[in-house]
Amino acid sequence: MNNEKTHRVEEDFLGTMNINNENYYGIQTLRAVENFPITGQQIDEELIRGLGMVKFAAARANHRTGQLTSHLADAIEQASREVIDRKWHDQFIVDPIQGGAGTSINMNANEVIANRALELLGEEKGNNMVLSVNSHVNMSQSTNDAFPTAFKIALLNRLNQVLDVMESMHLSLLEKTYEFENCLKMGRTHLQDAVPIRLGQEFSSYAAVIKRDINRIKTVKETLYETNMGATAVGTGLNADPDYITYVIEELALISGYPMTTSPNLVDGTQNTDVYVTVSGALKTCMSSLSKISNDLRLMASGPRTGLNEILLPPRQPGSSIMPGKVNPVMAEAVNQVAFKVIGNDVTVTLASEAGQFELNVMEPVLVSSLLDSIKMMTNVIDVFNNYCIQDIKANTDRMEQYVNQSVGIITAINPHIGYEPASSIAKEAISSGRPVREICIERGVLSEEELDLILDPYKMTTPGISERSIEQIKG
Amino acid sequence: MNNEKTHRVEEDFLGTMNINNENYYGIQTLRAVENFPITGQQIDEELIRGLGMVKFAAARANHRTGQLTSHLADAIEQASREVIDRKWHDQFIVDPIQGGAGTSINMNANEVIANRALELLGEEKGNNMVLSVNSHVNMSQSTNDAFPTAFKIALLNRLNQVLDVMESMHLSLLEKTYEFENCLKMGRTHLQDAVPIRLGQEFSSYAAVIKRDINRIKTVKETLYETNMGATAVGTGLNADPDYITYVIEELALISGYPMTTSPNLVDGTQNTDVYVTVSGALKTCMSSLSKISNDLRLMASGPRTGLNEILLPPRQPGSSIMPGKVNPVMAEAVNQVAFKVIGNDVTVTLASEAGQFELNVMEPVLVSSLLDSIKMMTNVIDVFNNYCIQDIKANTDRMEQYVNQSVGIITAINPHIGYEPASSIAKEAISSGRPVREICIERGVLSEEELDLILDPYKMTTPGISERSIEQIKG
Amino acid sequence: MNNEKTHRVEEDFLGTMNINNENYYGIQTLRAVENFPITGQQIDEELIRGLGMVKFAAARANHRTGQLTSHLADAIEQASREVIDRKWHDQFIVDPIQGGAGTSINMNANEVIANRALELLGEEKGNNMVLSVNSHVNMSQSTNDAFPTAFKIALLNRLNQVLDVMESMHLSLLEKTYEFENCLKMGRTHLQDAVPIRLGQEFSSYAAVIKRDINRIKTVKETLYETNMGATAVGTGLNADPDYITYVIEELALISGYPMTTSPNLVDGTQNTDVYVTVSGALKTCMSSLSKISNDLRLMASGPRTGLNEILLPPRQPGSSIMPGKVNPVMAEAVNQVAFKVIGNDVTVTLASEAGQFELNVMEPVLVSSLLDSIKMMTNVIDVFNNYCIQDIKANTDRMEQYVNQSVGIITAINPHIGYEPASSIAKEAISSGRPVREICIERGVLSEEELDLILDPYKMTTPGISERSIEQIKG
Amino acid sequence: MNNEKTHRVEEDFLGTMNINNENYYGIQTLRAVENFPITGQQIDEELIRGLGMVKFAAARANHRTGQLTSHLADAIEQASREVIDRKWHDQFIVDPIQGGAGTSINMNANEVIANRALELLGEEKGNNMVLSVNSHVNMSQSTNDAFPTAFKIALLNRLNQVLDVMESMHLSLLEKTYEFENCLKMGRTHLQDAVPIRLGQEFSSYAAVIKRDINRIKTVKETLYETNMGATAVGTGLNADPDYITYVIEELALISGYPMTTSPNLVDGTQNTDVYVTVSGALKTCMSSLSKISNDLRLMASGPRTGLNEILLPPRQPGSSIMPGKVNPVMAEAVNQVAFKVIGNDVTVTLASEAGQFELNVMEPVLVSSLLDSIKMMTNVIDVFNNYCIQDIKANTDRMEQYVNQSVGIITAINPHIGYEPASSIAKEAISSGRPVREICIERGVLSEEELDLILDPYKMTTPGISERSIEQIKG
Repeated sequence: MNNEKTHRVEEDFLGTMNINNENYYGIQTLRAVENFPITGQQIDEELIRGLGMVKFAAARANHRTGQLTSHLADAIEQASREVIDRKWHDQFIVDPIQGGAGTSINMNANEVIANRALELLGEEKGNNMVLSVNSHVNMSQSTNDAFPTAFKIALLNRLNQVLDVMESMHLSLLEKTYEFENCLKMGRTHLQDAVPIRLGQEFSSYAAVIKRDINRIKTVKETLYETNMGATAVGTGLNADPDYITYVIEELALISGYPMTTSPNLVDGTQNTDVYVTVSGALKTCMSSLSKISNDLRLMASGPRTGLNEILLPPRQPGSSIMPGKVNPVMAEAVNQVAFKVIGNDVTVTLASEAGQFELNVMEPVLVSSLLDSIKMMTNVIDVFNNYCIQDIKANTDRMEQYVNQSVGIITAINPHIGYEPASSIAKEAISSGRPVREICIERGVLSEEELDLILDPYKMTTPGISERSIEQIKG
Repeated sequence: MNNEKTHRVEEDFLGTMNINNENYYGIQTLRAVENFPITGQQIDEELIRGLGMVKFAAARANHRTGQLTSHLADAIEQASREVIDRKWHDQFIVDPIQGGAGTSINMNANEVIANRALELLGEEKGNNMVLSVNSHVNMSQSTNDAFPTAFKIALLNRLNQVLDVMESMHLSLLEKTYEFENCLKMGRTHLQDAVPIRLGQEFSSYAAVIKRDINRIKTVKETLYETNMGATAVGTGLNADPDYITYVIEELALISGYPMTTSPNLVDGTQNTDVYVTVSGALKTCMSSLSKISNDLRLMASGPRTGLNEILLPPRQPGSSIMPGKVNPVMAEAVNQVAFKVIGNDVTVTLASEAGQFELNVMEPVLVSSLLDSIKMMTNVIDVFNNYCIQDIKANTDRMEQYVNQSVGIITAINPHIGYEPASSIAKEAISSGRPVREICIERGVLSEEELDLILDPYKMTTPGISERSIEQIKG
Repeated sequence: MNNEKTHRVEEDFLGTMNINNENYYGIQTLRAVENFPITGQQIDEELIRGLGMVKFAAARANHRTGQLTSHLADAIEQASREVIDRKWHDQFIVDPIQGGAGTSINMNANEVIANRALELLGEEKGNNMVLSVNSHVNMSQSTNDAFPTAFKIALLNRLNQVLDVMESMHLSLLEKTYEFENCLKMGRTHLQDAVPIRLGQEFSSYAAVIKRDINRIKTVKETLYETNMGATAVGTGLNADPDYITYVIEELALISGYPMTTSPNLVDGTQNTDVYVTVSGALKTCMSSLSKISNDLRLMASGPRTGLNEILLPPRQPGSSIMPGKVNPVMAEAVNQVAFKVIGNDVTVTLASEAGQFELNVMEPVLVSSLLDSIKMMTNVIDVFNNYCIQDIKANTDRMEQYVNQSVGIITAINPHIGYEPASSIAKEAISSGRPVREICIERGVLSEEELDLILDPYKMTTPGISERSIEQIKG
Repeated sequence: MNNEKTHRVEEDFLGTMNINNENYYGIQTLRAVENFPITGQQIDEELIRGLGMVKFAAARANHRTGQLTSHLADAIEQASREVIDRKWHDQFIVDPIQGGAGTSINMNANEVIANRALELLGEEKGNNMVLSVNSHVNMSQSTNDAFPTAFKIALLNRLNQVLDVMESMHLSLLEKTYEFENCLKMGRTHLQDAVPIRLGQEFSSYAAVIKRDINRIKTVKETLYETNMGATAVGTGLNADPDYITYVIEELALISGYPMTTSPNLVDGTQNTDVYVTVSGALKTCMSSLSKISNDLRLMASGPRTGLNEILLPPRQPGSSIMPGKVNPVMAEAVNQVAFKVIGNDVTVTLASEAGQFELNVMEPVLVSSLLDSIKMMTNVIDVFNNYCIQDIKANTDRMEQYVNQSVGIITAINPHIGYEPASSIAKEAISSGRPVREICIERGVLSEEELDLILDPYKMTTPGISERSIEQIKG
């Protein structure tokens, strides 16, 4: 229509800008877009939703203290809900890496919510006289409490997602533990033949470490419920009504569904970012475990003809354009790569945390985006690793049994029965001749077939103890 | 039209897939999309263009050896040119982090180019009988030579981009060196007052280190011209015609504009990724320098009332929603954050490089994307840092002069003229009383105003030497 | 005496070696010394003591199962006790970084204890027929359970040491919190003037984060009680009597004083090193916090004439040979440096943990030495930082008050009372003229002296709330 | 003698200390010992020697400018020479990690040299009136130029040492390249069977990357000749005679044997530490290469019965106390561990470099000790890795040949001769039946024995090209 303006003019103390009136974001968002064209990536969706929840809770609290009329509060709340519901995601256009400790993303949220609220009220976008970006949407807040609080909610949501896929993977590892319960194979230390073990025991070990990783992530998650809402600029709470501080955390708990609490020391809650380093550390530990598991799987699946060939990973895609029939352990390789990324991001998070100064850590944007990236990549890769690899691993039991039989390491179990010296002599012959230990034992007459059956009983060799009594029974 | 099929069916040894016939990518691309939904990011544009150049050069070389008809070669070349010209960027949909050492992105390129070439030939997409993804587009190649070669071309282009903005920043720093040539200020070591220096000298130091960073990046760039085209699967060149190896590098040099050469040891060229660690190290060193410069600028611009307030950074955006008039050093803060990211990425690149095994480094995808990300972020942040910050830095000469005058550190220059003991005594009185050193010298009659003018001559205090002779002239 | 031999000959499957008979270590120790002259450093004392405890507990347990006579067990126990009591520290000569997953340090302990036990029995050193290094001292053990268990005991002791100094430092920070309770100063965000805060609040924030660091380290400490004693080679417990497994952990708990338990999954307990990554992560987080605190202190103590000069750190040594009277914040600088070392070691620990393969992590020696080094450096630097710096920090209250009064940031408190627009106008005049905000308010007649006294009340400005009601009372 | 005093009293502005008169170090050294009991390690010997050279050169230069009498200069020079000759190493007792940017180690050197010079002059130690620690030994210097210059000389010496052992290792790798020239083995990518390669080609690849590492370290070494001698406190050269600056670098070149030069920008030369980050980066790249090589060797030597068993590493020590006959790849494992340490140290060096502020980087001590530690560990581990492992590697040619023959990957060479479809069919049968490819080819009559001999010629399969023409000759 003719009478609708296509652009509006917004102003701050640096000057004015023309803004396409279709957009809900405003001048501060555009300044940030100009200043920080760094990564070209988008802000994490959960962070945007977290900001929506913060603005929602603040509007409710400000209304309860009487600072915000229900007319304005209702509009802000509805606009915030739409942000939470992902309706305006495309209006969040600032870069994840930005100067200003998150001011730009906070202002992006303030502007989008203010203009959407104005629209809901039947007012024109940009009409700060009716509903102000700073005075109303950002009321009783500062970037310095709003942004970290939104981040914590985003972290909680993202950590729940990664915990979900980790739990699934843990179940798969347990299932494989049972499935491979009786698959005897050679244990290896230093990549050298050691003594027998069962494939199920190895998977039980993988399950055990992942279980600890789950618990570690759950433990650090608990520390994220505490936020600094009400801290305002430096943690002293200047210009924040004490009642507001009480109300806003109640409202935040309601809208987020998490048992949010107010930091007992808001100055501490505003300047310190140690809790994020702890979160990153838990992620890094998990990916370090998982990278080791991937390496083991890739080794066991190596071959098929010129490698260990003990297990079969499900084929997911042709492995080579030049070598027909080649299949590569691509899912495990993706896990390794995400591990390297998460370990690198942990260094970034640590540096960002260490660089805090005085009342604020201005490096939070890079910390936030690195940490959320780590969790998202982990969630994605664990999900596909579980579904497309772990669940369909097959054991090559023939090959594993063959290894055990031809191995010299089983001499260790024979050791206590015939003495160290004769055992060493048999080991030496086995190594030089290439013949099985069992065969030489029988040939030399040191142990009977019956005795060897007992001593080399697959299951017993992989559990604690010396098979003395059983042997005594035979001999007796 | 009715008779146009909307989907085509493609097959590999794992089965068949339906592909929307609008798409140029095929079954292998789709498998990769299913397998690796890791980062949600796009493949770097320059990497796609690099693949286009590799496919172009290979088609030319294969035509020259007679293995590829001109009919097919022409079509592949034209399709590749379009990829180089960014026409099919939206058809490259695999994730930057992928298992398989880049097989998926290589196949994505092979499929897009094959189907586009078929289209140019008036054939149906997917008609491998006429023009085959593997046999023709990927002819004489393996992912293991095509992908690293495309990466090297991408790196060269990206490094040129970052070098451009670094050169501009270096010029700005030199300009500031001249502009601030005569701005005397206090030098600080350990954040404690030291002896006078000129702001221009500090900027000359910034310019000097950035110049070295430029040279270091240029030096590592030179090492990237050497590629392993012709290595095929493991570097032995199996199935690659020796003439092809000669031709393909000639063609690659022509299409890329870089003096590309063939690695003298193709096995080495295929399995080792040390050169990328070196590139990453040069980037990291640069960002470490730049982060230090940013920290200095943020410190000098601190205040304005309760900080050093020696320089003024151009305001780029309102710094706070709660504190009117606050302006933050946002551009410098963005530099710090990119530095932390690049340092973290350097760890990732190192881990990926260390994890190579035998004839190939399968971790290349994460190495590639981390390295290209680092360069892009650096290019972007250096550009805005230069344009929006460095070029408009202003010196607060009054404040700097005031610091020099009230400082006790200038006693160091007086030291050689009156002896260490009297100098220490004056220093002690200056510290306890808060009075200027100059005033106490005159009061005690140890030096005349004329002598002090000479000794405390701003420029002389910031250049090598002891002002003995000048003083002797006065005394004489 | 003539008939005492000066050397003895020892043999293993690689050959024989002459050993000076004064030495308790034997052939395997010497092989390791030849193989691994890597760092030139000594094995951590607590690790040696931990090995002593492991050997003591194993001898007791083997005696209880009847595998070891009391004659031999007593001798081994006494020799082990002497190792625990630091008597044979100089006999532990292998390098902290060694191949073989700790075999060399385990054998060094076995040899020293065996030969000392032989001596106690009145036998010649090296008489393996009487008391054997492998069969008796190492009975029922493998390096793969003995070494990690000794390491865990060493970690527990070292962590207790660092916790002690952290608790002391925490107390000092609390004392400073009270001492500086009423020291009003300017809060700074982005190194730019923000709003007032109290120095005591800043120290309370330092105390709070260190308290969390203490708790994090205590939490990870709890996870170290679980060991894999009885796992033997690969965690299956082959050749370890089930009773022995029960007994050895009881004995280990007694001798170490820690509530040690047996890992519920010995295979997991043998191959996974995630718990160490978690310990390292907690240390890194702590040093990251402490480095930030050191940076704040160095900034606040900067000057004295040309820096912030808000606090005084106790002088510890002359700061310069060329600049008389210069004092540097050397203790804080040492903290930063240890932080960088601990962060670097965390990367090393992570890489070592990730590099485990199959049933064992052979990279444990570098992991162990890096982690113990980190804790020792932290213990040492925190101790001196607390005693020589934190406890004697003095506040420069005059300077801090002066900053608050001349700051424009206090306009933020006035904001709610006079409206945003008038406040901005006053701020603008204050900035351009350099005059105090308070003065301009009175001049313009917007607020009375009485009202300003209330609004700008130092303590109130640093606590939550808007001074509305008080003002209304005045106005009313 | 009775009349000799056992202690002397020294004084600085913090007070007095009693010093055992046997010691050459003085009060500043003792203050540092008290302040920094951090690592318990000793200062690197080459750093001490470097300080000796700096003090020697400064005394010579100060004598040439007439500022130092020949009486004093001679004594300082002789004392310095003794430090260079390692005579007073035990008098350097400060910790490598220290606050104060190296002031303590510089003063330790100044004190030892001053007191030794006094002794040489027949004077009492501590007689500063005759020869002063600060005024004479440290004349025209500051820690800020003396310490980095000594460090550069230490680096040069240490880098030469590591280059020596790298050159030896490179030669060994070349020898192995020739020795294994004709050892055909299977190439592996993704740990999966690929196509044949020769073991010699693999070693040539190892040699090639180490050669690049050598060249990279040589290149960065060249950048270390430039020092900031004459910069004094902040790089302005205050109180340093311009002639002195010329002379001191001449003298330093003479005494050190390196072509030392003066930095063209002394301010830059004093505050920036980028060159050390570059050195560390080159070391890290080298160890990353070497860790990959070690991993390959450990994989190829895995087994002997249940691993690849392609090569034999020389046994260096018994691998297990519980498993008879076990030998582990301990030398390679040590290399991996040093790699992890050097990569961690690289992070430390980067953090320390980034943390420089204004005119000085006060974090140099930790940077210096981390970098020297890295080089020493590398030198040591490369030396033993070369001597005790690489030089005696044996190829298990039977096993490798067997792998090639049973591999399906050789179908790749047959591919061009019979077409992709028949080749795939043969591959499929080979995989499912476990029979050799060659056997199936003959059975199916697709190729004759003669043709297969040509196509599967070991050497040809590992060099570029398609054996078409040879085949055509047979057929023709």
